[in-house]
Amino acid sequence: MIYLDNAASTPVHKQVLQEMIPYLQEQYGNPSSIHKYGRDAHRAIHNARKQIANLINADPKEIFITSGGTESNNTALFGIAKLKKGNQVIISSIEHDAILEPCKILEKQGFEIIKIPVNDVGQINPKDIEDSISSNTCLVSIMFANNEVGTIQPIEEISKICHQKNVLFHTDAVQAVGKVNLDVKKLGIDLLSISSHKINGPKGVGALFIKNGVDIEPFIYGGGQEHGMRSGTENVASIVGFGKACHLAKENLDKNIAYMKNLQRNLITKILQEIPHVTLNGHKEQRITNNAHFTFLGVSGEDLIIKLDENGIAASTGSACSVHVQKESHVLKAMGFSHDQITGSLRLTVGILNTDSEIEKAVDILKKVVSELRAVSPLKEKYGF
Amino acid sequence: MIYLDNAASTPVHKQVLQEMIPYLQEQYGNPSSIHKYGRDAHRAIHNARKQIANLINADPKEIFITSGGTESNNTALFGIAKLKKGNQVIISSIEHDAILEPCKILEKQGFEIIKIPVNDVGQINPKDIEDSISSNTCLVSIMFANNEVGTIQPIEEISKICHQKNVLFHTDAVQAVGKVNLDVKKLGIDLLSISSHKINGPKGVGALFIKNGVDIEPFIYGGGQEHGMRSGTENVASIVGFGKACHLAKENLDKNIAYMKNLQRNLITKILQEIPHVTLNGHKEQRITNNAHFTFLGVSGEDLIIKLDENGIAASTGSACSVHVQKESHVLKAMGFSHDQITGSLRLTVGILNTDSEIEKAVDILKKVVSELRAVSPLKEKYGF
Repeated sequence: MIYLDNAASTPVHKQVLQEMIPYLQEQYGNPSSIHKYGRDAHRAIHNARKQIANLINADPKEIFITSGGTESNNTALFGIAKLKKGNQVIISSIEHDAILEPCKILEKQGFEIIKIPVNDVGQINPKDIEDSISSNTCLVSIMFANNEVGTIQPIEEISKICHQKNVLFHTDAVQAVGKVNLDVKKLGIDLLSISSHKINGPKGVGALFIKNGVDIEPFIYGGGQEHGMRSGTENVASIVGFGKACHLAKENLDKNIAYMKNLQRNLITKILQEIPHVTLNGHKEQRITNNAHFTFLGVSGEDLIIKLDENGIAASTGSACSVHVQKESHVLKAMGFSHDQITGSLRLTVGILNTDSEIEKAVDILKKVVSELRAVSPLKEKYGF
Repeated sequence: MIYLDNAASTPVHKQVLQEMIPYLQEQYGNPSSIHKYGRDAHRAIHNARKQIANLINADPKEIFITSGGTESNNTALFGIAKLKKGNQVIISSIEHDAILEPCKILEKQGFEIIKIPVNDVGQINPKDIEDSISSNTCLVSIMFANNEVGTIQPIEEISKICHQKNVLFHTDAVQAVGKVNLDVKKLGIDLLSISSHKINGPKGVGALFIKNGVDIEPFIYGGGQEHGMRSGTENVASIVGFGKACHLAKENLDKNIAYMKNLQRNLITKILQEIPHVTLNGHKEQRITNNAHFTFLGVSGEDLIIKLDENGIAASTGSACSVHVQKESHVLKAMGFSHDQITGSLRLTVGILNTDSEIEKAVDILKKVVSELRAVSPLKEKYGF
C-alpha cells in the first residue's frame, strides 16, 4: 500500500519507537513519585521537553505537554477566554475543527468570533486582522498551514500586527511543525499548538507553547502536573517518543524539507501533466512541503479515495478528522469553490518515508482510476471528457 | 528494586505491550481516515471499547475514551455542570485532586460544593448525602476507593440514594477497577472514571463511562471523535493496550484479587507483628485489595520513603500526584489524624507482579529502616522507642 495521507497521521519513526519501549517495559514509574522509578520517569520528561522546545526555538519552560493538537487548541482558546480580558476572538474562516468547535462554545458563552476570509488560494489578508482588532479582542488565532490545501499564512505579519495592537497571537501549527523552519522567537508567537503524530511521533501526545509571561488559565485540573497547567499522570512513553520525534525533525529539518519538496514537486508536476481537467488548489509557493491538493472535475472525491484504496493508495478528500461526518469542506467553500469543485477534491500528502517510485506508481494508478470514474460520470457531457 | 507503589502506576503487562506494538509500527492510520489504514485503526478502537465496557459490564456505546482518569473526572464534572441543571455538587472530603481542583473552579463559577465528611477509617455515611441533596444538586461524585488509605465507599447505597432523589451519580473508580468486581448496572452508576495505567495498561489513556441516556456536554471540542464527546485523533496504540489490559483484568479478576489479597494480608500482618508503634490506617475489611497504609509514629514518611528507596523499595507517603507539592494529606486530615500521625504515614501498594518473597524482604528492610530513623527521632523520648 502507498500511504499518501501523511497530513492525517504519519508512521512512527523506528528510532522513536525504540526510545519509547523502555517506558512501556521496566521504566513504569509515575513521574510524580519520589523514588527511583518516579525520578527516572521525571528525568525522561525533562529531556523530552528540551527536545520539543528546541524544535521551535522555545525555552523548555514554555512547553506544556498535552494529549495532542486538539487539546492544545482547546487549552489556548479556553485558557485565554477564561481570563475575560475581552470578549472577542479573531480566527480565520479555514481553521481546523479543533479551533472552530471550541469557538462555537465561546460564542454561546457570549464571545464574538470574527472569521477572517481567505482568497481563492486560501490565504488571509493581514490587513483584515488589523481592521478587526478592537479593545475587546483577547486573542487572534490563525493556523500556520492549512490541513486541507496546505497554504501557509503570513504568520510573521500577523504576529507583528497583534503585538502592535497588544493582542495575544496563537497559531495552530500542527501541520507546519517539522515542515518549515519554525522559530517562535523570530516569529513573535505567543501560543502555538503542536501534535506528535504529524511528525512521525506517537498519537495521543502534543504540546502547547506558551511564551514566558503570557497569562493563561489551565484547562484540565487535578494533581498539578505541567506546573499546574495540565493535570493528569504524564504519558511518559509517548512524551519520550514525541521528544525523540522532535529531535529527529530538528536534526533533519533541511534534509526532510528538501526530500518532501522533491516528492511533492514530482507528484504535482506529473498529475498536472498526465491527467486532464485537473487543478492544483491552494497557494503555488506558500504551501506546506507535504501537501498536494487537487480538483478532478467530474469525479466524486469520495469515490476516488475508495477506488484508490482498492488500488493500494491511501488518500483523503480533506481533513481526516471530519470524514466520518460527511460534510462539504468549509475550507474550499471559504476559498470560493463551487459545489463541483469541492466534490472533485483529493488531498495527497507525502511523508519522509515515501519514495520516488511510490509517487510514480501512485500517479499511474490515479490516472487510471480518474479515467474509469469519468467514463461513468454524470458530468461527462458537461465537461466533455 | 521492589516496587510497592502500584497505586501510583503499574507495570505494563507484556501481553498489553505486544498488542500495542503493531499500532506503533505498520498500523499507523488515523481512525477517521476511510482508507484501509484508517479502517484498521477504527476497528482496533471498536474492539478495545468492547473490552473496556466488558470489564465494568457496560455497553460499548457507554464508553468514551479520554487521555486518563484526570480528564475523565474533569469531563464528568464540567460536562454535567455546563448543563446548568443545578448549582450544587456533592463530593466527599477525601476525593483525589482530579475531583477537588475542578470543584474549586466550579466554586468560582458560582457552584456550591458540599464536602461530605468521613469517619476515622475514611468512610462516608450515605445518610449525609441524603441529607445534603437539594433541588439544586446536579451531581454527586464520590470516589469508589480512596487512593491513599484504600477505603471503599458504600457505592451501592450512595447510588440508591441518588436515584431516589433523581440526582446523577459519578464515581472516580480509578483505584477500584480491576481490584473489585465492578458492575455499573448492578451498582446503578451513571458516570464512572477509569485509568489504564492503574491496571497494567499504558499511561495517557482512560475512559469515562456515561450511562445511556445521561445528558452531558463534551469537554474537548474539535473533529467530533468519540461521538462528539471527546475530540482529537485517537491514541490508537494506547487504546488498544488499554483494551487488552481491561480484557486481562476481567479474565483474571478473581485470581488477581485473591493473589493481591494474599500479598496484602502478609504485608499487613508481618508489619503489625514485627514493627512496634505502628497502626494500619483505613478500613480493615472494606479496603481495596492492593493497599496497605500505615502510620509509623516518630518517623517522617518522607525520610522513610527516601531511606526505603536507598534500600531498594519503591513506596509512597500517599498520593503520587501531589508529592512534588509537599503538603499534608487532606485525606488523613479529614480522617481526624494528628500532625504526628500524618507525618509518619507510608503507603505500600502491591500489584499482580509482586511476589511473596518480595513482601518478606520488604518487611525486613522496612523494619530496619524504621528502627534506624527512630533511633535519631526527636520524638524518641515522647513515644519511648
